[in-house]
Amino acid sequence: MTGVMPIRRTGLLSSPVFLTGTANVGIVYQAAVELLGAEGVRGVVPVVAECWDSLGDIRGRHVRSEHVRAALTSAASGAVAEGAVGGGTGMTCYEFKGGIGTSSRVARGRGGAFTVGVLVNCNQGGREQLLISGIPVGRELKDYPVPKKAPSSSIVLVAATDAPLEARQLERLALRLALGLARTGATANTSSGDLMLAFSTATPGDLVLDDERLTPLYQAAVEATEEAVLNALAMAVDVVGADGEVCPALPLDRVETILRRHGLLR
Amino acid sequence: MTGVMPIRRTGLLSSPVFLTGTANVGIVYQAAVELLGAEGVRGVVPVVAECWDSLGDIRGRHVRSEHVRAALTSAASGAVAEGAVGGGTGMTCYEFKGGIGTSSRVARGRGGAFTVGVLVNCNQGGREQLLISGIPVGRELKDYPVPKKAPSSSIVLVAATDAPLEARQLERLALRLALGLARTGATANTSSGDLMLAFSTATPGDLVLDDERLTPLYQAAVEATEEAVLNALAMAVDVVGADGEVCPALPLDRVETILRRHGLLR
Amino acid sequence: MTGVMPIRRTGLLSSPVFLTGTANVGIVYQAAVELLGAEGVRGVVPVVAECWDSLGDIRGRHVRSEHVRAALTSAASGAVAEGAVGGGTGMTCYEFKGGIGTSSRVARGRGGAFTVGVLVNCNQGGREQLLISGIPVGRELKDYPVPKKAPSSSIVLVAATDAPLEARQLERLALRLALGLARTGATANTSSGDLMLAFSTATPGDLVLDDERLTPLYQAAVEATEEAVLNALAMAVDVVGADGEVCPALPLDRVETILRRHGLLR
Amino acid sequence: MTGVMPIRRTGLLSSPVFLTGTANVGIVYQAAVELLGAEGVRGVVPVVAECWDSLGDIRGRHVRSEHVRAALTSAASGAVAEGAVGGGTGMTCYEFKGGIGTSSRVARGRGGAFTVGVLVNCNQGGREQLLISGIPVGRELKDYPVPKKAPSSSIVLVAATDAPLEARQLERLALRLALGLARTGATANTSSGDLMLAFSTATPGDLVLDDERLTPLYQAAVEATEEAVLNALAMAVDVVGADGEVCPALPLDRVETILRRHGLLR
Repeated sequence: MTGVMPIRRTGLLSSPVFLTGTANVGIVYQAAVELLGAEGVRGVVPVVAECWDSLGDIRGRHVRSEHVRAALTSAASGAVAEGAVGGGTGMTCYEFKGGIGTSSRVARGRGGAFTVGVLVNCNQGGREQLLISGIPVGRELKDYPVPKKAPSSSIVLVAATDAPLEARQLERLALRLALGLARTGATANTSSGDLMLAFSTATPGDLVLDDERLTPLYQAAVEATEEAVLNALAMAVDVVGADGEVCPALPLDRVETILRRHGLLR
Repeated sequence: MTGVMPIRRTGLLSSPVFLTGTANVGIVYQAAVELLGAEGVRGVVPVVAECWDSLGDIRGRHVRSEHVRAALTSAASGAVAEGAVGGGTGMTCYEFKGGIGTSSRVARGRGGAFTVGVLVNCNQGGREQLLISGIPVGRELKDYPVPKKAPSSSIVLVAATDAPLEARQLERLALRLALGLARTGATANTSSGDLMLAFSTATPGDLVLDDERLTPLYQAAVEATEEAVLNALAMAVDVVGADGEVCPALPLDRVETILRRHGLLR
Repeated sequence: MTGVMPIRRTGLLSSPVFLTGTANVGIVYQAAVELLGAEGVRGVVPVVAECWDSLGDIRGRHVRSEHVRAALTSAASGAVAEGAVGGGTGMTCYEFKGGIGTSSRVARGRGGAFTVGVLVNCNQGGREQLLISGIPVGRELKDYPVPKKAPSSSIVLVAATDAPLEARQLERLALRLALGLARTGATANTSSGDLMLAFSTATPGDLVLDDERLTPLYQAAVEATEEAVLNALAMAVDVVGADGEVCPALPLDRVETILRRHGLLR
Repeated sequence: MTGVMPIRRTGLLSSPVFLTGTANVGIVYQAAVELLGAEGVRGVVPVVAECWDSLGDIRGRHVRSEHVRAALTSAASGAVAEGAVGGGTGMTCYEFKGGIGTSSRVARGRGGAFTVGVLVNCNQGGREQLLISGIPVGRELKDYPVPKKAPSSSIVLVAATDAPLEARQLERLALRLALGLARTGATANTSSGDLMLAFSTATPGDLVLDDERLTPLYQAAVEATEEAVLNALAMAVDVVGADGEVCPALPLDRVETILRRHGLLR
C-alpha cells in the first residue's frame, strides 16, 4: 500500500483508495497523481493497495490510465458491486474465487449511532482454513475442485466511519479488521501483506468521540469485516484465468447443506 | 507489561514472564529484580504483565515478595495448572470465571517439526461475545447468572516455540495470537490492553528459519490460542470474589447441550 | 519506562513521571500506585523511567516509599533543581557528572505563542563524543580525569507544552528531542535505552493546533533539549560514588577557554 | 517511500532504491517493475523515495521509463556523483542548492572493521537552521540571496553496511541517520517526510554481529550522515529553476571565512 507514511504523519487520508493487482501499482499511482493534479489537488501521495492477482495476465499491462479515470469519475454512492469485479477480478480466496466484498453495521451507544462500513479485496487463505460461523466449511469442501495456483495470501481491509475519531482511534479501529478476518479462518500466511486502513468521514476539528464510546464501533468493525469477506465469496462467480484454468466460486448450495447439517440454518 | 522496551531493543527475552493483578506490578517487579540479582542476573528489566483482577481485594496488598520467590523456585516442566490459579485467580472471561489457559500444537513443515505453546491469562469479553467453534454460546447463555462487575477487558497472550526464529519473526508470530483470540469472540474492548509476546527457546546464533516455513507456525499459534482461551474457561471453577459475589464458571453441561444442538458434538 | 502502553492506547498521560535508578523501579511503581490510589486515582499505571545509576550503591535499596511520597508532596512550580539531584544523583554524562537538566523556549507562530519545556535525566555518552555548539569539547578534555566506570548509555527526555496537541502530534514532538540530544554529540550507544515522552497540559477536547503550526514547536524542542543536556552538565558538581571514586563535574573554566579559543565566546 | 511494508515484513531489501521527484513516483515504480520483471525478478515491490523537487517543472512528466533503465544499467561501483544530479536535481537544502551527498566511515571494533556508507538526497531546512560543526553558518549568511520558494522539508537518508546485521539492528542503525542530520541544524519541519533506510550487503544467514559491537557502527552512521549532507551542499552548483529563478549553491568562500573566524579552520 503506497501513501501510508503521509497518513501516519498527518492523520489524514487525502487520496481515494485505489485497489489493483501488484504489477499495476505504478500505472495507477501515476494516473492518480495526474488526474488529481488536474483537479487542482497538489502534493497528494495516492493510496494504492495491491494484491497478487494470480488469475490475471499479470504482466500484460492491461490496466491503463483511462481505467483509473473511469474509476474516479464513476465513483458514486449506493450499492457496491461485489465479487470478481474491479481490483478483485484476479483474486482468489480460500482457493475459491475471491475479490471485493462489503458490509456495514450501525453501532449504537451512549455517544450516538454511527456507521462502520468495511470493504475488502480478498486474496487470502488455503481451502482448509475457511470457516463460516465457526464451521470448518473449507475442510468439508476438500473434494471440490481446487485451482492449480498456490493459495494466495494477502487482503486489503478498509473501514470507513462517520464517527468523529482521531488518528490514534482510527489506528485502533483498523487493528480490529484483522479480528473479523480471523473469524473466517485466515491465519495470515507467511508471504502475507495484510493491509488495514480505517478513516473517518467526519469533519476534522469535530470533537472526537470519547474512548469509552469505542467498544460498539469495534464490535461493528469485527462483524462487518467477517461479513464482507463472506460476501466477497458469495458474490463471486466462476472465473476462467488468463491461463485457461477455472477458479470456482464458492458453491452456495453445498455451503447451505453443510450449515444446515450443523444446525446453523433450519 | 513492563520490560517491553529492552525486548524490542535487544530482540531477547531475559526475564521470566510474571503474571499478576494490576496493583501488584511494583511488588512483583521489585521482588524479581532482587531475586534475579541474588542469582547473579544483573541489569534485567523484569517482564511483569498485569490484568485488572476485579474479583480480588485489589488494594489489599496480598501479593508479597515470598510469593514471587515461590513462583520462581517452583517453576517446572510438565502439566500446567489452569483456570482460577496464580495470576489468573481474580480474572473474569466473557463474564464467566477466567484465568490461566494453555495449549500447544506441533507444526510440521518442510523445515521440520516445531512446537508452539501458548499460555493466556484471560480477563476479557462480555457474555454475549463468547463464540465456541463459531457458535454464539455466550448469547445462548444470556439467562445464566452474570457477575455484577462490568465486563473486563484485557488479556495476556504468551507464545513459546522451539523454532529458531529471530525477533522480526517472533513479532509476527505474536500478532497471530490476536487472531486466535478473535475466534473466541473477543473484539478487544475500548479499555483493553491486549498484550502479546512470543519468544523462542532456540539458541541465539542458530540459523533462523526461512520465512517460507512460518505458515504452519502461524496456524499453530492461532489454533493453540483459541484452545488456550477455551481451556481457561473450561478449567475454571466458581469463585467467590472479595466482595462476596460469586463469579460462575462456564457451565460445561449446558455448553455441551448447545454444541450438540448445533451439530458440533454428536 | 513503565506505563508506555496506556499512553499509546489512550493518548493521555495519567501519572506523574518518576525518574529513578534501575533497581528502584519496582519500589517507586508500587509506592506510586498506593499513593495515587489513596488520593482516589484508580487504575493508573505509573510512568517510572530509569537509568543505570552507576555512581550509586545500586542494590542497596536506598529508595523507599517515603521518598516517593516526599517527591509527590513537594512537587511545585518554579525553578527546578538541576545536576546531581533526585533521580539524577547517580548518573554520568559524557563521562562527567550528569543528571537532571531543564530548559524551555517560547515558540511563536501564527497559531500563537506556546511554551515547550524539556527536562532530561542524562546518563549517556563517552567523553570523546561531547559537543558544545559543535565544538568537540570532549576531545579537548581527553586529559581530564575520567571515571573508571564504563561510559553509561541512556537518557530520559521529557517535554511538556501548553500547546493543544493531540497524541499523534506529541509523538512527533517527542522524536525531536533526540535531534536536540544529537547536537551534544550522543550517538545512542548500543545498550542505550533512550526514552522520550512529550505531553500537553492543554485541556483534552481543546481544538488541536494545525500541523502547519508545529514547526516552531519542533525548533523549540530541539533547542531546549540541547540546552537542557548542557545545563545538566553545567549544574552538576563533583560526586564521590558509592565505591569511593570521584566522578568529576564538567570543568567550566576549561570549557570557557576552549570555546573562547574557537571564537564562540569573546 | 514505496516498498516499506515488504522490507518490514521480510527484513530484506529486494529492490534497488530509486530517488526521484514527487510527481514521478508512479513512472519510476512502473518502469522498475517492468525492468526487474524482464530480468526475471518477480514480485518485487520497488523502493521509490521521493522529495518535492521545487526547482523543477514538477508536472512536466520529464522522467520517463528510459531514464530508469539508464539508471539501472549504468549503476556502478566507485565514485558517486554529488550535488545537483539525478534525483537531487530539483532539490534545495537550507535554502541553498541541495541534492545528492554521500560519505562513509570504517568502524573498527572488537567485532572487526566494517564500512558504513550513507547517501542522502537533501531537500530540507530553512536558511537560518544550517549548522556546520555547530557554527550557525546559515544565520551568518542571512544576507545571501534566498530562493523565492518556501523552504523545503524532506530528505531521504540511506545507509549501507557490510556488517552482518539483522533487520532489528538495521532499524536501529537507520534511526541514527536522523542524529547525523540533526547536527547540520535540521529540526524536521512540520510537513517533513524524513525517510531513513539501512541495509546490509552481508549474506543472509551469516552470523549476525553481537549488539555489543554496534556502538562504532552508530558513531560511523551519525558522522557519515552529517558529512554527506554537507557534501551535498558543497558539491552543488547554482541551478536555474524551471521558473527562471536561480537557486544559489552554498558560497564556499564565505563559509571558509566564517569557519576561520570561529577558529575552526586555521
